Amino acid sequence: MAAAICLGAGRASPDRLLAILFDDFAHWRGDAPVMKVGIIGASGYSGELLVKLLLAHPHVTLAAVTSRTHAGKPLAQVIPALRGADRGLIFTASDAVTLAASDVELFFLALPHGAAAEFARVLVPAGKKVIDLSADFRIADLATYERYYGQHHAPELLPSARYVLPELTPPAWRIEAKLVAAPGCYPTSVLVPLQPLLTAGVVSRSHIVVNSFSGVSGAGRKIEEQYLFCERAESAKAYGLLKHRHLAEIEEQLSPRIGPPVVIQFNPHLAPMRRGIATTITVPAAPGASIEELYATWRQVFAGRPFVQILPSGETPDTAFVVGTNRVDIAAVYDPRTKNFVLTSAVDNLVKGASGQAVQIMNLWCGFPETAGLA
Amino acid sequence: MAAAICLGAGRASPDRLLAILFDDFAHWRGDAPVMKVGIIGASGYSGELLVKLLLAHPHVTLAAVTSRTHAGKPLAQVIPALRGADRGLIFTASDAVTLAASDVELFFLALPHGAAAEFARVLVPAGKKVIDLSADFRIADLATYERYYGQHHAPELLPSARYVLPELTPPAWRIEAKLVAAPGCYPTSVLVPLQPLLTAGVVSRSHIVVNSFSGVSGAGRKIEEQYLFCERAESAKAYGLLKHRHLAEIEEQLSPRIGPPVVIQFNPHLAPMRRGIATTITVPAAPGASIEELYATWRQVFAGRPFVQILPSGETPDTAFVVGTNRVDIAAVYDPRTKNFVLTSAVDNLVKGASGQAVQIMNLWCGFPETAGLA
Amino acid sequence: MAAAICLGAGRASPDRLLAILFDDFAHWRGDAPVMKVGIIGASGYSGELLVKLLLAHPHVTLAAVTSRTHAGKPLAQVIPALRGADRGLIFTASDAVTLAASDVELFFLALPHGAAAEFARVLVPAGKKVIDLSADFRIADLATYERYYGQHHAPELLPSARYVLPELTPPAWRIEAKLVAAPGCYPTSVLVPLQPLLTAGVVSRSHIVVNSFSGVSGAGRKIEEQYLFCERAESAKAYGLLKHRHLAEIEEQLSPRIGPPVVIQFNPHLAPMRRGIATTITVPAAPGASIEELYATWRQVFAGRPFVQILPSGETPDTAFVVGTNRVDIAAVYDPRTKNFVLTSAVDNLVKGASGQAVQIMNLWCGFPETAGLA
Amino acid sequence: MAAAICLGAGRASPDRLLAILFDDFAHWRGDAPVMKVGIIGASGYSGELLVKLLLAHPHVTLAAVTSRTHAGKPLAQVIPALRGADRGLIFTASDAVTLAASDVELFFLALPHGAAAEFARVLVPAGKKVIDLSADFRIADLATYERYYGQHHAPELLPSARYVLPELTPPAWRIEAKLVAAPGCYPTSVLVPLQPLLTAGVVSRSHIVVNSFSGVSGAGRKIEEQYLFCERAESAKAYGLLKHRHLAEIEEQLSPRIGPPVVIQFNPHLAPMRRGIATTITVPAAPGASIEELYATWRQVFAGRPFVQILPSGETPDTAFVVGTNRVDIAAVYDPRTKNFVLTSAVDNLVKGASGQAVQIMNLWCGFPETAGLA
Repeated sequence: MAAAICLGAGRASPDRLLAILFDDFAHWRGDAPVMKVGIIGASGYSGELLVKLLLAHPHVTLAAVTSRTHAGKPLAQVIPALRGADRGLIFTASDAVTLAASDVELFFLALPHGAAAEFARVLVPAGKKVIDLSADFRIADLATYERYYGQHHAPELLPSARYVLPELTPPAWRIEAKLVAAPGCYPTSVLVPLQPLLTAGVVSRSHIVVNSFSGVSGAGRKIEEQYLFCERAESAKAYGLLKHRHLAEIEEQLSPRIGPPVVIQFNPHLAPMRRGIATTITVPAAPGASIEELYATWRQVFAGRPFVQILPSGETPDTAFVVGTNRVDIAAVYDPRTKNFVLTSAVDNLVKGASGQAVQIMNLWCGFPETAGLA
Repeated sequence: MAAAICLGAGRASPDRLLAILFDDFAHWRGDAPVMKVGIIGASGYSGELLVKLLLAHPHVTLAAVTSRTHAGKPLAQVIPALRGADRGLIFTASDAVTLAASDVELFFLALPHGAAAEFARVLVPAGKKVIDLSADFRIADLATYERYYGQHHAPELLPSARYVLPELTPPAWRIEAKLVAAPGCYPTSVLVPLQPLLTAGVVSRSHIVVNSFSGVSGAGRKIEEQYLFCERAESAKAYGLLKHRHLAEIEEQLSPRIGPPVVIQFNPHLAPMRRGIATTITVPAAPGASIEELYATWRQVFAGRPFVQILPSGETPDTAFVVGTNRVDIAAVYDPRTKNFVLTSAVDNLVKGASGQAVQIMNLWCGFPETAGLA
Repeated sequence: MAAAICLGAGRASPDRLLAILFDDFAHWRGDAPVMKVGIIGASGYSGELLVKLLLAHPHVTLAAVTSRTHAGKPLAQVIPALRGADRGLIFTASDAVTLAASDVELFFLALPHGAAAEFARVLVPAGKKVIDLSADFRIADLATYERYYGQHHAPELLPSARYVLPELTPPAWRIEAKLVAAPGCYPTSVLVPLQPLLTAGVVSRSHIVVNSFSGVSGAGRKIEEQYLFCERAESAKAYGLLKHRHLAEIEEQLSPRIGPPVVIQFNPHLAPMRRGIATTITVPAAPGASIEELYATWRQVFAGRPFVQILPSGETPDTAFVVGTNRVDIAAVYDPRTKNFVLTSAVDNLVKGASGQAVQIMNLWCGFPETAGLA
Repeated sequence: MAAAICLGAGRASPDRLLAILFDDFAHWRGDAPVMKVGIIGASGYSGELLVKLLLAHPHVTLAAVTSRTHAGKPLAQVIPALRGADRGLIFTASDAVTLAASDVELFFLALPHGAAAEFARVLVPAGKKVIDLSADFRIADLATYERYYGQHHAPELLPSARYVLPELTPPAWRIEAKLVAAPGCYPTSVLVPLQPLLTAGVVSRSHIVVNSFSGVSGAGRKIEEQYLFCERAESAKAYGLLKHRHLAEIEEQLSPRIGPPVVIQFNPHLAPMRRGIATTITVPAAPGASIEELYATWRQVFAGRPFVQILPSGETPDTAFVVGTNRVDIAAVYDPRTKNFVLTSAVDNLVKGASGQAVQIMNLWCGFPETAGLA
């Protein structure tokens, strides 16, 4: 709308205005020089979703999709849901150097842990924007990362990396980050309801108990017996107790820079559904804190955020209502008998828990409307 | 085997022996005078399962099945899974007086809360054994019952009623009880792993957080929109926070007779499956308590119990492995960072959580092998 | 682009150009005078989806959503999946006359059978475009309609109504129709693969056997025991044999105007899933017809159609790949032993089988790109 | 009851009677010398179920369970559903010679196709009864077998093998068979309703169209991407058109010994459920045949058969009502417009379609009550 302002103020010649207008016009119409993006490693469940989201995004052109497994195959052959809608794209096997030399401006890394570094360490110095969906750059403390994930393959990039959960991370990242680490699925479902309350001192810092129930796609497209239909249908079980990798990420985000770290109990479970995470957090109220104070904190922190829905106390989020959207629904109750708050949240592990959040990050990083391609 | 002994010792005439033999023979064959049982209100999910279990039970004859809704219909017409296997039984609409006058010796009440009293108050004084699957006689404290369920319709029976979870309730009930209240499904999944540890002082009495994840049959056969297939498939959500009726029962069972009551956080959830409950309990370890001590307590309490399986620490129960059986699988881990134990359990809400446990109670009450009809 | 042409040709003053530009600009941006549409009766599964599709459609504004049941409630309260995305719309209880007097240009009727007529007979004469998702105007022969559905409430509208399956219906409907009947879900899955082959004489007109497996949402949001989660999960069964209402519609579409009608065997089944229809049609090949001829017919008929995907012979469609899209995937094989063709198709019953197809019809009727809002 | 008869007729001395009585008595009580059975290859879905059925069978002792993959492991470790109920059995890796030399009397082969022969060719000549759950001995015509399955590894056993579907196969097999081939799952669901009608001339021999819809366990425990939960949930698709292996078996059973073979269209589909097969068969009525004649044929053929339930015309079988039982539910309707009968059936693919039927075969072969262990 720069054009409109100039016109109204008589500050520009008509020619100049037309140039600006056309630029805006084309930009909005999609004939504009839209930003070229690429996805590296797109054959998992979150990678597939990322492809779909970017193909439909009004401000980007998906210019490259790489996968060593599927190099040479048309997108629709690997992702049948995209038949007739894959713009004729073909998976390529491009290496990092070739991609760095291309005119693609931003890359999404949808590779397994450990594999992202190989590409990041070439693309970032080349000036490309990089959004990583793996855990490789989520954890600032190298020792912690290595304890949970093994050797880090690009620790030199950690200082220029930023962990970005858009609703919670202070906006300086848009300027500081050279590489953005998109949060994990469970962490998203936990941090959104919990982190603001810890920061505001509304909840206790100890005796935090997190239980999460996730759809099976959260485990990835691993071809293992435990993920067979006949094993997972009509089945619910806890897994990864005490040692789930997301624990490191959650605790690092919740802990203050100075002072003792926050330590939580994190109990993940597999649920007999494909997508969605329902998280229930039990945490003692800070002395004197009320449910009204909790809701006031949420409303303040999430004011104007398009992807967080605060439900009234007494209602509970249902994964079925968020699956397919980039939304987190949250709610809370206060139990006067135990003096606990019970916080509940629901997200789609593949959307707001992974690919949708990655696109939301891109939107903010590149100046697009935050909801572009994610309505 | 009395016959064999007599024969060997030459203590009886062949005629007498034959009589004894035939009696034993017939007993084992099923022509014996087996105990006659009846089910009052058998058209819900647990009622149906109770019918199947009793039809196949080697020591009982299912002699009466009542249901006002289905009076006059053959069993297999209402329970199609029983086609060809319903012994020609018909639902009747018998009232309590008629049933009390019959030669049926034991009745299962599978009625909604509040409705059991009407029958219990006639059958119990008539000397019939009564096992109630509803909550009406589970809670000893009348005020507590009425706070959660409304007016009690037969409080005079409470003194002769006994809450029986076979693995936990001291055996005196077999003599004292005139009426047995079978525990609820969630309580079974919580009390089995937790109660022995509280009693033994292995876990703290506060900061107990219970999360449970149940199949939809736990809600009963209610024809409501929220239980439609399209609403529950691919959906997970918390519900009944702070006020689920089973909370009263669980806390009464966990609380000591003298001293402050135990108060817990109980967070139930609906899972997109038909049957099964996965429960995860987070509770601080008592000072100095170790995981070895916890397992030792379990092994001691559950020694020789056929329906409790203790899994090694590190394994977690899966509802898929207990559904269709009367078993509870339990496991536990210790988190040195939080000093919590995390206890996990899996049960079939309809079997060990309701009808299977009712049959197990009958077996113990009437002197049958504990596993009869429940292998 | 009129502005660009004028500018290049120097044919207009800058002021005039700016006006044109802004108009175009606003149109593309969404500030333009887009077409106002309304949905009458939006509380069923297809109604909900229609709301979502229209809210996101680039060329329309959803201006009215009516429902007697939910009048006065915000959209997001009734359709929780739309939290934060319902544009503040409220359900109204408007009657037909009020709607006919409004500036809404096109109405979708998402009402139960029989109820659409009440609105159609007021809106159509008032010059509104009407797209009906019910069966009320799908069947041209009044006697046939009444045999399957009961009394018709607006037979006078039948002459100006058109049954439109965009890929199959000759385009004259765009001019002739005053009211468009959107096809049913099963008929869409059957007619797309079969009708062109009958017309081209590639398949026999007799011994046609159609088997379809549908997700439970096809039955609508009926609160009945048979649609409960516990009844439909892990369950598959035939239903509506010989007398499913869609039979009338399918046969009328397949039958030639002159000559004996085509009569088929149509066997619907309920599948334990929420959405999707898999249809398998067995039909004798016409004498001398080959699989190559069949595929050539399909390619010719569906050339350039964005929503039909023809899979190679030997591959079979999977509902999972079309659910959430407006696409029909089709394939066929020839069995030299039986001389039958076996045609397979997959659609999403709510999208291409109902609401997506309705939007596709609107796009064609109103001159929008066919894929607008349906990518 | 021989004892009772003798006693009544005064035909035996008391001593003799006692001996007979004890024999019967012990037999019924289970202290009798019950028959020892073994399962070779028990780690697939039908193998697991066979283990459960035999462990609970009143007249057999499961004495050996072999599996190369799991040799040395306790049963309950491989089949967690059997925790606490596996009688301490361990998987062994016994070879055929060792098993043949043991005192096990009857072996079930639950191995993949091709592997059964290795064991059968040693066990059968050794006088062991063998029931094979694979397809290796189902097809009498060697050329047909090899066309669908590859090389046959024990063709010399074919003459002494018998294909036994108890409700349909004439009883001479009990004497003639040295090895029994248990039918496949789809064939069971097709032959039960269809074969008697072909034999009785109630239906046409041509234009037979069979559509079947199976739970995923029918594919076995194959660790392949297509059987992952996320691929099969909310998915329905046809597969194996024209070339499913069960086609050979079905057609051989349906075809007369002399005269042209019966050729059918067999269209299998995968359904998003674990167990169950719903089959729908469309077949022209023979000239003059009525639905009454069809039902009369069924009633006559299946009179007294405990595992076939004939539903009234107009009702349709539901897999949910047969899963977990050894029952086949069947029904039929007649369409006067097409002159077709539409036959419907439902079975549990693992029970009556595999392991339950194998146990039923054993019962008949060894003189046990037909329903023993299968109630």
